[in-house]
Amino acid sequence: MDVNLNNYFNNYENLEVHELMLRDRPRQQAYKRAIESNANLFKDKVVLDVGAGTGILSAFCAKAGAKLVYAVEASNLAEIALKVMEDNGLTPVVKVIHSKIEDFCLPTSAERVDIIISEWMGFYLLHEGMLDSVLFARDKFLKPDGLMFPTECAIYVAPCSVPSRFDDWENVDGVRLTSFSSKLRKQKSNNPEILQISPEELLHSGTLVHWMNLIDTVAQDLNEIIFEDVLAAEKSGKHQGFCIWFECRFPSENYEEAVVLSTAPNSPLTHWKQCVVVLPENACTEIDNNAPISFKMSMRRRSNDHRKYDLEFELLDPYVIEHPVPCDCYMTKFHFIKYT
Amino acid sequence: MDVNLNNYFNNYENLEVHELMLRDRPRQQAYKRAIESNANLFKDKVVLDVGAGTGILSAFCAKAGAKLVYAVEASNLAEIALKVMEDNGLTPVVKVIHSKIEDFCLPTSAERVDIIISEWMGFYLLHEGMLDSVLFARDKFLKPDGLMFPTECAIYVAPCSVPSRFDDWENVDGVRLTSFSSKLRKQKSNNPEILQISPEELLHSGTLVHWMNLIDTVAQDLNEIIFEDVLAAEKSGKHQGFCIWFECRFPSENYEEAVVLSTAPNSPLTHWKQCVVVLPENACTEIDNNAPISFKMSMRRRSNDHRKYDLEFELLDPYVIEHPVPCDCYMTKFHFIKYT
Repeated sequence: MDVNLNNYFNNYENLEVHELMLRDRPRQQAYKRAIESNANLFKDKVVLDVGAGTGILSAFCAKAGAKLVYAVEASNLAEIALKVMEDNGLTPVVKVIHSKIEDFCLPTSAERVDIIISEWMGFYLLHEGMLDSVLFARDKFLKPDGLMFPTECAIYVAPCSVPSRFDDWENVDGVRLTSFSSKLRKQKSNNPEILQISPEELLHSGTLVHWMNLIDTVAQDLNEIIFEDVLAAEKSGKHQGFCIWFECRFPSENYEEAVVLSTAPNSPLTHWKQCVVVLPENACTEIDNNAPISFKMSMRRRSNDHRKYDLEFELLDPYVIEHPVPCDCYMTKFHFIKYT
Repeated sequence: MDVNLNNYFNNYENLEVHELMLRDRPRQQAYKRAIESNANLFKDKVVLDVGAGTGILSAFCAKAGAKLVYAVEASNLAEIALKVMEDNGLTPVVKVIHSKIEDFCLPTSAERVDIIISEWMGFYLLHEGMLDSVLFARDKFLKPDGLMFPTECAIYVAPCSVPSRFDDWENVDGVRLTSFSSKLRKQKSNNPEILQISPEELLHSGTLVHWMNLIDTVAQDLNEIIFEDVLAAEKSGKHQGFCIWFECRFPSENYEEAVVLSTAPNSPLTHWKQCVVVLPENACTEIDNNAPISFKMSMRRRSNDHRKYDLEFELLDPYVIEHPVPCDCYMTKFHFIKYT
């Protein structure tokens, strides 16, 4: 993987990456619905699209009634975005700017935009670290009462089974291939894996690791996220890993009706799939329903490459650490009784 | 892509390649059925598995009753194959040899094997050029009346539409992205693409380009395959490319009941998918049912890398070239009448 900035943008010049994103229906539909259902918020407004790529989100904003859209794109995709705007008759509204957002200037230093839109999310939300650029743009260009699309994000984690890494190999057409699969797992063990986890493979419906409001989050908040919890398994099964996903919420006049782009296992599959930290074979255990699973999770930005994170999980001894109150696990002696 | 031999084998040490192959159900099932349904042919026989990988085909042969299986693997996978044989109690039958087949020797120079099995097929059959090693093994190690698994192969081609490269981009959620898609196509235009083509996208059911019997084919036959034909479109549509696929037939006492591994668009999808040569945009045409499509196709082994081929298509003028007799295209003045 690349560590310097030039390579970072070069990656985005591989058009297949953009093809993958444009073919991601839940992603596209979430942005489209979030914009169209908020047409009143876009009407006659000035929008800044950070990392515009092919410009499709800028086009959605223009079609929703924006007066002016700045589509800022650092890679050569900017040339394509410009042609896309021409092809769609949108050049009067969408101004494509080939620039890093950090080098971009609005026509006057006092000018501010009403809305910032960006699709900056990476695997497990923070991979790629593009959010830093979005927060930079917010601080420099957004009006005090301006809107962010999306406006809230949350990261979730759940213990899970990962049969594709273990059980599938016990019997491959009558042949035991576990010697192969453990090598395969070893080859991949230093990195979280981007896999599809089915809802049935989750041992817990998921717990919130981190929530942020993009209106006031600062980049430093993202340097280190540490989370410790005891979860009670919601069913029995093989605990073979931790599944991480995220959700992004878009602004809405009615919070309950806001468009949410979810990459959870029970949501339609996106190109982000789920991010899975697979346990070493000797740490995998069969667990019962209600068994406590206690762990510490940390996401730390790398000092030598601020776009990457190190993910670490530590399994903790549920007999030693403090449980939340109330805790549903079977170690808990007293339960609150819920009246319904 | 790699041009030297060390890199060629290193690629096979990326275990994800093997994961992909082992998860390819039609591939696995074809070999398993071909072996199991011919258990009488394997009973007490000596088998050579060329490029054994994880050793799964050798295991199938051993379970089908082979007396002895030489599993020859050039990459480090040989170590895994050895463990797989131990895990399955097959070490008395399967001898794993970490060697290139070209360096391998049977215990006595006079010894020969009854059956050679290998999964050597690459994209459009010949990519990777591993067949050369299989033919080498046949000439050196196979008894005169020995069997090859598979024993016959055929390459087919058909004109097709490729909507994923053209039409899908006319309207992406209301935005015309053809400027993006034509750049995308240009980025990929020097290489055939490995795509899934649906049967509905074919404009013709396919014509045989090359057929070979692995019992008597020689490597030189594979240096250059040139094919010229006029096909009558079997439906109207957009001619945007040529789709190439292959079939492999395994030995059987009853030819009609032989197991066939097909990578045709109307067969279950394999990891080979289909190989598509996409036409330049200005060569794409709307064609009518029965319209003649005349072309010359060549597959030429590269002089500097015998594992790779250059694929070339030339569209010919159907008014100039000679049509087959009978020809179903609408230019043909006289038709044979079929009585049913």
